[in-house]
Amino acid sequence: MPQPDHVMALPVPETPDLDPDMAALFAKCEEKLGFVPNVLRAYSLRPKKLRTFAQLYNELMVGESGLSKLEREMIAVVVSSANHCYYCLVAHGQAVRKLSGDPELGEMLAFNYRAAKLEPRQRAMLDFAWKLTKEPWTMGEPDRQALRDAGFGEEDIFDIADTAAFYNMSNRVASAVDMMPNRDYHKQDR
Amino acid sequence: MPQPDHVMALPVPETPDLDPDMAALFAKCEEKLGFVPNVLRAYSLRPKKLRTFAQLYNELMVGESGLSKLEREMIAVVVSSANHCYYCLVAHGQAVRKLSGDPELGEMLAFNYRAAKLEPRQRAMLDFAWKLTKEPWTMGEPDRQALRDAGFGEEDIFDIADTAAFYNMSNRVASAVDMMPNRDYHKQDR
Amino acid sequence: MPQPDHVMALPVPETPDLDPDMAALFAKCEEKLGFVPNVLRAYSLRPKKLRTFAQLYNELMVGESGLSKLEREMIAVVVSSANHCYYCLVAHGQAVRKLSGDPELGEMLAFNYRAAKLEPRQRAMLDFAWKLTKEPWTMGEPDRQALRDAGFGEEDIFDIADTAAFYNMSNRVASAVDMMPNRDYHKQDR
Amino acid sequence: MPQPDHVMALPVPETPDLDPDMAALFAKCEEKLGFVPNVLRAYSLRPKKLRTFAQLYNELMVGESGLSKLEREMIAVVVSSANHCYYCLVAHGQAVRKLSGDPELGEMLAFNYRAAKLEPRQRAMLDFAWKLTKEPWTMGEPDRQALRDAGFGEEDIFDIADTAAFYNMSNRVASAVDMMPNRDYHKQDR
Amino acid sequence: MPQPDHVMALPVPETPDLDPDMAALFAKCEEKLGFVPNVLRAYSLRPKKLRTFAQLYNELMVGESGLSKLEREMIAVVVSSANHCYYCLVAHGQAVRKLSGDPELGEMLAFNYRAAKLEPRQRAMLDFAWKLTKEPWTMGEPDRQALRDAGFGEEDIFDIADTAAFYNMSNRVASAVDMMPNRDYHKQDR
Amino acid sequence: MPQPDHVMALPVPETPDLDPDMAALFAKCEEKLGFVPNVLRAYSLRPKKLRTFAQLYNELMVGESGLSKLEREMIAVVVSSANHCYYCLVAHGQAVRKLSGDPELGEMLAFNYRAAKLEPRQRAMLDFAWKLTKEPWTMGEPDRQALRDAGFGEEDIFDIADTAAFYNMSNRVASAVDMMPNRDYHKQDR
Repeated sequence: MPQPDHVMALPVPETPDLDPDMAALFAKCEEKLGFVPNVLRAYSLRPKKLRTFAQLYNELMVGESGLSKLEREMIAVVVSSANHCYYCLVAHGQAVRKLSGDPELGEMLAFNYRAAKLEPRQRAMLDFAWKLTKEPWTMGEPDRQALRDAGFGEEDIFDIADTAAFYNMSNRVASAVDMMPNRDYHKQDR
Repeated sequence: MPQPDHVMALPVPETPDLDPDMAALFAKCEEKLGFVPNVLRAYSLRPKKLRTFAQLYNELMVGESGLSKLEREMIAVVVSSANHCYYCLVAHGQAVRKLSGDPELGEMLAFNYRAAKLEPRQRAMLDFAWKLTKEPWTMGEPDRQALRDAGFGEEDIFDIADTAAFYNMSNRVASAVDMMPNRDYHKQDR
Repeated sequence: MPQPDHVMALPVPETPDLDPDMAALFAKCEEKLGFVPNVLRAYSLRPKKLRTFAQLYNELMVGESGLSKLEREMIAVVVSSANHCYYCLVAHGQAVRKLSGDPELGEMLAFNYRAAKLEPRQRAMLDFAWKLTKEPWTMGEPDRQALRDAGFGEEDIFDIADTAAFYNMSNRVASAVDMMPNRDYHKQDR
Repeated sequence: MPQPDHVMALPVPETPDLDPDMAALFAKCEEKLGFVPNVLRAYSLRPKKLRTFAQLYNELMVGESGLSKLEREMIAVVVSSANHCYYCLVAHGQAVRKLSGDPELGEMLAFNYRAAKLEPRQRAMLDFAWKLTKEPWTMGEPDRQALRDAGFGEEDIFDIADTAAFYNMSNRVASAVDMMPNRDYHKQDR
Repeated sequence: MPQPDHVMALPVPETPDLDPDMAALFAKCEEKLGFVPNVLRAYSLRPKKLRTFAQLYNELMVGESGLSKLEREMIAVVVSSANHCYYCLVAHGQAVRKLSGDPELGEMLAFNYRAAKLEPRQRAMLDFAWKLTKEPWTMGEPDRQALRDAGFGEEDIFDIADTAAFYNMSNRVASAVDMMPNRDYHKQDR
Repeated sequence: MPQPDHVMALPVPETPDLDPDMAALFAKCEEKLGFVPNVLRAYSLRPKKLRTFAQLYNELMVGESGLSKLEREMIAVVVSSANHCYYCLVAHGQAVRKLSGDPELGEMLAFNYRAAKLEPRQRAMLDFAWKLTKEPWTMGEPDRQALRDAGFGEEDIFDIADTAAFYNMSNRVASAVDMMPNRDYHKQDR
């Protein structure tokens, strides 16, 4: 049974009435990626939210940080694995494959990050992200100290928390509206 | 043992180097609320994230939507209850008390929303938010249809999802860094 | 939607046929508290159980013990938080506010006791109560030893166990019959 | 490795200083059962609690009720199964075997009550008890209505709730202090 | 309500068309046990699977191994306890009673193995089996090292894993098809 | 950090002492697949178990059944997703990609099968497998009836149960010993 080509279960404007900056963002995606990520098309149902989401996302994932871009993508995949989020596992699994040059690593983080043999720094980061996703109410000073012991600074801890938290948001938007990832991701960087 | 007066477990800049728009936001908070919410002071450790967070939050909670401001705060409290988030339960519990004029309702939503006798529309909205928080991977068409049956439109469904998802993010940032709410909330609107 | 003024979802005798000692208890409540706690009115549906419940409760909460009255109420609130019991969180949250003189502490224990900065003795006591509530089958000697290390004696350990266990009972009676707390608690000791 | 002959992990008075009514209770147990149940010997560490516990227990299990004594024991076993309580499963499993005359039924309720082919009335009662044990915060009118549909009256619903709740208490006391059942139960009514 | 005498909820061939080796197995069971275990009769619905199941089972439970036969049965019971499998708890509980000569041990392992006072070797083995049953994705080198520290060799670790894993399979077949144990087990070795 | 090339965390015989039939199986794998699946190499630590495992597996996955080979692989992937088993998700994800000719389907089943738009027959089959994996003790007649309603016969129900149960076994062996899949699977059938 072939999968239908849908963006999400809610109606998506065919020609969304985008403000110039958002239209520019869509055009830039088409140019750089060859497509507009479906998450952006989905948010175009609520154009003002599209802008604040895109700005937050951009700062989070490509802004200055003590975490490398790959590390942020690793957190994205591990949180999405804990939440079984199809959209984010496909899109960010591809990002991990690309940034790491290691297709197996993408699979490992999506399926069970504990199967990967990681440097202690990255293992500590992902353990923190998993626990924060599953049982946020149990977080305490020992969890933060484990990050410091692994070499992270105070701002890095904030960024790990913020990044893991963000994917707990985007996973839930995607799951709630049945958002489907663009098919282009599947074949890339295998 | 008196509780210390801290903003979070990570260091907070005493005099953060804020851009003019963020300085204006802090000033506006002081003027309108009498204090700067600690969540904003915490984010000032990462000033660029402060801006994108504040913009997203503002659009989410006071922007135009088919959900009333009270309904958005109700979602905030119920999600925070599922995640046992002290900061958000204090801050948004106060908001529910104020906007509803019903202090008991604030307690009910914080302790167990099922104890409240709600209109079917609001009960459906909160059931959706709770399930999306606890088991996002199980969401499906029947969950969206239950919202439609309760009178919500397609954009409203997006906003319910987006609001519940946002508090799954902010709950986790707060829990990860031990963010404490301003003490002013406790006595208000009792 | 205003909340109805009900005691529980099962019928409550308007003028229960109370034995003299129970009638005296009701009168004493009216005199000291200004109202009869709804839990007692609910139990009056089964007058003989009312007596044995009241006797057990009285010995547990005001009888002689190595645990202070505040500590017993702290356990009550934390167990009720784990069980999301609206009735007990309202009633015993007020008791913590009153006995501690610290309204924030009441909120912290109800929302997430880990947010509170507690003396090691009290933290150990509440960790034991939470674990006993959530996964009683995993309790073992290390859990008891942690209480001894925090300064508790053998009888104190029995009392911590007994108190936490009791609220696992009363939380479930309250939840099963939709028991509502008297409204008087809400404004007290804020 | 032979199991030691202990009552609980806390010290038990060899010759407890019992008030006359409690001494009479112990004597009656010796006479009728041939032994004093270890739960009573354990509570003799706190003699005043022994009395209130014994009174509550007695009213609950042998007092007048719309639930038969077997039905109350069935609830005891199913709740104890959900809580993996060794003491209560041994002691009340024996009671089910004796009162029902059906040793298999005792095993079924202890291992997985859903394996038993029960009358709808009893299945409804046990489903209610299991859910109340596992997720008390989700109980609502549909759960009570299911009991009414199975033929239970309002007082019966109170008694089902109260009985299931009681074993959530006693399971936790037993688990917290490593209470061991008297060995006599094992061979009885097989 | 007497329990019906059924093998499973799916139809069982009255006179299964067994190959000679399987017919011999059934005959041997009749001779040695006095009955054919219902699990074998259930599998006779799919005769080829009967053979591969019987061969695997036989190698697992009576083949050469560093684990004693009792230890293998202990694992069977503890895994079945975690999975609440009626069939396996009855059949293997009897095996533990018989092989250990200790009826209490059978009950302890079925109800809550943590209640048993075990040698460190056996406790480590059962902790490993329980965790592997409940959260297989969290297993790691510390879990294997705990077995080595308790005296197990590399092949023993494989056998512990394999045995615990097998009962996670057979528990699920039994639960899925409502397989009932032969009644003969109940009275044996009490 | 490149992933090491290991078969499992326990020692694997470099030149296992295989009986002729097992040596033939290894040779056949080399010829048909180009490699010996690591699960077989891992089992060669216990050569007799290798044989019974291989025989059971073979009957299960390629023997005659009302379930197509693709359907059996779909169950394998969904069970392994519930158990976060890296080995089985890699190996059987590839099998789904190959047998279905649909790489997206492999990803969907591995990440969250509810994201896939499936025929009712297959959705019912996978819902049964997921529930049997997560909460086997709750299975009952309604679950079997849902399979019948979706068109499955009695033997098919046995096979669905048996297949889902098998992967609950193999997932746990793989997780317990840190079994790694052959790298060849990753690039195949993308």
